[in-house]
Amino acid sequence: MPSDPAIVQHAELGEGLGPPGFAWRHESMPQAEKLFEELLETSGDGPGVTRAAYTPSESAALDFVERIAEKYQLQSARDPAANLVISLPGQDPRSPFVFVGSHLDSVPNGGNYDGAAGVVAGLLCLIRLRLEGKVPPLGIKVLALRGEESPWFDTACLGSRAIFGELAGDFARHHRSTGLSLREHLQAVGADIELIASSRKLVEPAQIAAYYELHIEQGPIMVERKVPVGVVSGIRGILRFPSINCFGEEGHSGAVPRELRRDAVSATVDLLHRIDSHWIKSLDQGLDLVITSGMLSTPIENHSPSRIAGATAFSLDVRSIDRDILENVRTFIRVEMETVQRERNVKFKIGTEYLTPPERMDSTLRSHLTKLAERYEIPYIEIASGSGHDAMVFARNRVPSAMIFVRNENGSHNPSEKMDTSDFLQGCELLYRALTE
Amino acid sequence: MPSDPAIVQHAELGEGLGPPGFAWRHESMPQAEKLFEELLETSGDGPGVTRAAYTPSESAALDFVERIAEKYQLQSARDPAANLVISLPGQDPRSPFVFVGSHLDSVPNGGNYDGAAGVVAGLLCLIRLRLEGKVPPLGIKVLALRGEESPWFDTACLGSRAIFGELAGDFARHHRSTGLSLREHLQAVGADIELIASSRKLVEPAQIAAYYELHIEQGPIMVERKVPVGVVSGIRGILRFPSINCFGEEGHSGAVPRELRRDAVSATVDLLHRIDSHWIKSLDQGLDLVITSGMLSTPIENHSPSRIAGATAFSLDVRSIDRDILENVRTFIRVEMETVQRERNVKFKIGTEYLTPPERMDSTLRSHLTKLAERYEIPYIEIASGSGHDAMVFARNRVPSAMIFVRNENGSHNPSEKMDTSDFLQGCELLYRALTE
Repeated sequence: MPSDPAIVQHAELGEGLGPPGFAWRHESMPQAEKLFEELLETSGDGPGVTRAAYTPSESAALDFVERIAEKYQLQSARDPAANLVISLPGQDPRSPFVFVGSHLDSVPNGGNYDGAAGVVAGLLCLIRLRLEGKVPPLGIKVLALRGEESPWFDTACLGSRAIFGELAGDFARHHRSTGLSLREHLQAVGADIELIASSRKLVEPAQIAAYYELHIEQGPIMVERKVPVGVVSGIRGILRFPSINCFGEEGHSGAVPRELRRDAVSATVDLLHRIDSHWIKSLDQGLDLVITSGMLSTPIENHSPSRIAGATAFSLDVRSIDRDILENVRTFIRVEMETVQRERNVKFKIGTEYLTPPERMDSTLRSHLTKLAERYEIPYIEIASGSGHDAMVFARNRVPSAMIFVRNENGSHNPSEKMDTSDFLQGCELLYRALTE
Repeated sequence: MPSDPAIVQHAELGEGLGPPGFAWRHESMPQAEKLFEELLETSGDGPGVTRAAYTPSESAALDFVERIAEKYQLQSARDPAANLVISLPGQDPRSPFVFVGSHLDSVPNGGNYDGAAGVVAGLLCLIRLRLEGKVPPLGIKVLALRGEESPWFDTACLGSRAIFGELAGDFARHHRSTGLSLREHLQAVGADIELIASSRKLVEPAQIAAYYELHIEQGPIMVERKVPVGVVSGIRGILRFPSINCFGEEGHSGAVPRELRRDAVSATVDLLHRIDSHWIKSLDQGLDLVITSGMLSTPIENHSPSRIAGATAFSLDVRSIDRDILENVRTFIRVEMETVQRERNVKFKIGTEYLTPPERMDSTLRSHLTKLAERYEIPYIEIASGSGHDAMVFARNRVPSAMIFVRNENGSHNPSEKMDTSDFLQGCELLYRALTE
């Protein structure tokens, strides 16, 4: 059927993906790049990529992936949460499937790889199996998930949480851009509202043999260490205080002596310095920990160089792969607050506090990945993920889960995300081997 | 002339001021309070007092003081800078005069005592001399100065600086509220623009025997120490950095390990903590020093709890009675900035830096005041002034200068300034004794 354009494109794409039995490396680069370029074209004007959760821009990305899958006679469908599912049966149709997923939404003005890389990787694995005529031991379902990024509804991993019946409580949340509720957005993309509202699981965890997710690294570690692939040890939990206040008393900068001050800035500096010293000590003990105060401000309406600040507001974001470490830091922060309050005559108000527990990646899958990386000479490191991913939701629901990181420059969530296609294909190779061996 | 209302009021006011030879204490309170109340009435609607420099509200206050002076047959005039001058000749008309001054403008929504207390105190001393029929050894000129507060033209002590030919360079500054230039404002209140533009001194410093200024304390020290009167040792100099920047690099709060961070917040905290420790050490050595970072902020347009801050902006305000201490702190700050830059891979940009040198009060006048306070059993402490005053300008121009502080609650520059009239009259008593003995 050479007149069928789908088959022509199939052949074009297949050609570069290499003959059966050959690893993807440089020869597959133009084809993978083409997929990312075409995906980028579905995403409208810049700067960067904006595929807002549960909107037509996200749906266009799902449609694009589905069109490619159909060209390779891969079976595609939408699940009741309007996620895209592309399936390839395994040797035993009654066995549980292996899921491969990631998300197609992006943050506002983000990059083209955060999320999409994992979906494209899963798709390429299925295409390669098709081209090689191989039937994998277990069937594979590639998930193009929706709504993983938190800016849209101020909460993350909507698409994966819907699969496990965790989304009903979020229906009333409003979309950052449209103002419409999540319920309205789910309806608009064709989700089964009643089923999701029932909090029933769309898939039984026991029916998922494993969940794999390939994702760009969002930090600089792999660039720094010059290694293209990461096998993720776990996803750090987050202890977050979005807005702590320190209340002191305003005063004249020249006329109030130290012992009579209630200086909110110096008290805040004191506390943050104690926390920083604690962090250094924890790292010296080999503990996994990152601590960030990303927001810090004196009152913008009346602060002045000649006025002792009467208040500050600041955030704290504490992450670790180990829940005990998070609990210890929480205790440390509270104890030190007491000390600083006493010594500097101020008052801290902690405000809301969130704890997202860490999730370890499955040790069997991790060891499977590291062994395969060694066998196929794919340079890798083991690395903790500092940010949340859909894999966290699968792991939390007792699905054995694993992640593959791909080296990426300039961080994520910005238009400068920079993943080399050769690195990406090494990650795809590892994923392919994990799915087939 | 009992039908002359001025004389009636004279008698009323004079009655409470006490018979010749008697110190003012509680018996004078209602009269002093009445003066402040009437002054407050000239100042329009609240909240607090707004007597903007070189505007009709400030002029109304000068007019009010002049009317009171005229009721006591005190000679009054405007100097070429439109300041009010009330004179009482001394025993030798050829001797230099003693000046007593302070200002009648206020900050926006300030209090009724900052500035005005010193003018009213000088006026009461002249009235008392009149009522007692005494001729002081040296003639006295009470100055009601204009434009001492910096918010109006973004620079301070305009009225006193005009006296010493220091104002020509500021003509082009624009008034915060009216938008008009200082030149236009000077013209509107009747100043001699050409003379001020010539930078000639309106009075030769050698013709001023001494300058006294009574002022409310702007800090909490005298309230804390329970003492009504302060003899000022000197006016602290100011080393000010209105906006220092720290530049680092943004990054994901969970994904960037400590050693790869360029965290502007933690670098700023580190620097400010070093400066705070240095301050503690300096105080332990008995040095006069206050240090304030009153403004501190991460970039409001894009800071987030999950983003390592790429930049901060903060102010530093360092004050001391000793210029060498200011210079040492300046060096300390620069050295520590270098260290923090190196250790945390950030860059500080210091921006504009201002140094206002400290001014010591005249030691002979200070000792005169402390001896008189002891003789007349006026409880006092010696105290440094943390903020600038017109006395600074006189001292800088080699006029022997001294200041008397009066206890005041709630700081200054706000509607809650709270000076007890009994404290005020103890300050007036000390001023009166200094002028007459």
